[in-house]
Amino acid sequence: MVVMGIDPGFGYTGYGVAQQSNGKSQIIDYGYLKLAPKDSLTARIKQFYDFFELKIKTHQVTDLVIETPFLGKNAQVFLKLGYLRGILHLLSAQNQLNLHEFSPRQIKLSVTGFGGASKEQVARAVLHFVPGLAQPKKLDVSDALAITLCGIWRSKVFF
Amino acid sequence: MVVMGIDPGFGYTGYGVAQQSNGKSQIIDYGYLKLAPKDSLTARIKQFYDFFELKIKTHQVTDLVIETPFLGKNAQVFLKLGYLRGILHLLSAQNQLNLHEFSPRQIKLSVTGFGGASKEQVARAVLHFVPGLAQPKKLDVSDALAITLCGIWRSKVFF
Repeated sequence: MVVMGIDPGFGYTGYGVAQQSNGKSQIIDYGYLKLAPKDSLTARIKQFYDFFELKIKTHQVTDLVIETPFLGKNAQVFLKLGYLRGILHLLSAQNQLNLHEFSPRQIKLSVTGFGGASKEQVARAVLHFVPGLAQPKKLDVSDALAITLCGIWRSKVFF
Repeated sequence: MVVMGIDPGFGYTGYGVAQQSNGKSQIIDYGYLKLAPKDSLTARIKQFYDFFELKIKTHQVTDLVIETPFLGKNAQVFLKLGYLRGILHLLSAQNQLNLHEFSPRQIKLSVTGFGGASKEQVARAVLHFVPGLAQPKKLDVSDALAITLCGIWRSKVFF
């Protein structure tokens, strides 16, 4: 089982990849994809698709995990987030992956024990659970790792 | 120049395809894709992608035209519409198409001369402009044809 957690965005998309075998989990890749605002929306969507298609194939990902979005103040941002989520659904179908969705609350609860944790608390918890992990430069990456860990842990019960 | 107008939805997606050569426009295909609610969201997104990928290749489409969405009462419906729009952006990038977006008002104005026209008025105008067109069974199809016609006509000025 190889789980990839993704926190999509048109600025930075954080991701984490964890492998589980013999009851042990290991983070095998993490980082972020930065899309250039100067590129067209269409071009950025293709870059997003191509990047994650390659990650899926390289790591032989079996499960994708994403966070349930909430409607913020800006409806256009919300709609555009939908574009990237649509691409993740397509990649799941094309590569026969299971796609799991958890609420922000479930993810925070899973890694910090507190559903209302701040981004910084999530980042610290992630560092605690992944020994040897260098402090990610972006909170997007910590978030994606939290999503990944939530996916792995909940898999034991729900998947 | 081959223009495909699409009015996406998880129930019915109407589409129209028009070819323009020697200054004359002709509708060469129209209809709708129905997605089954019993299928998973992921499966429906893949069906949508596969259906329109085939249409693009079959008709050698050069331009896609879509309508600017507006945020209705249901944010989740709005988000999910974004999934399908993301797929259309990806298809545009993968097939080197131009993607054009017009507001509902621009489209209605284009085919009826009145930006506040009803769906029925749009349907009648479409029938008027496409001689020999059988009355489409769904208003989704009339809407898609209106989007297509708007794309073709505006192309003379803007594309």
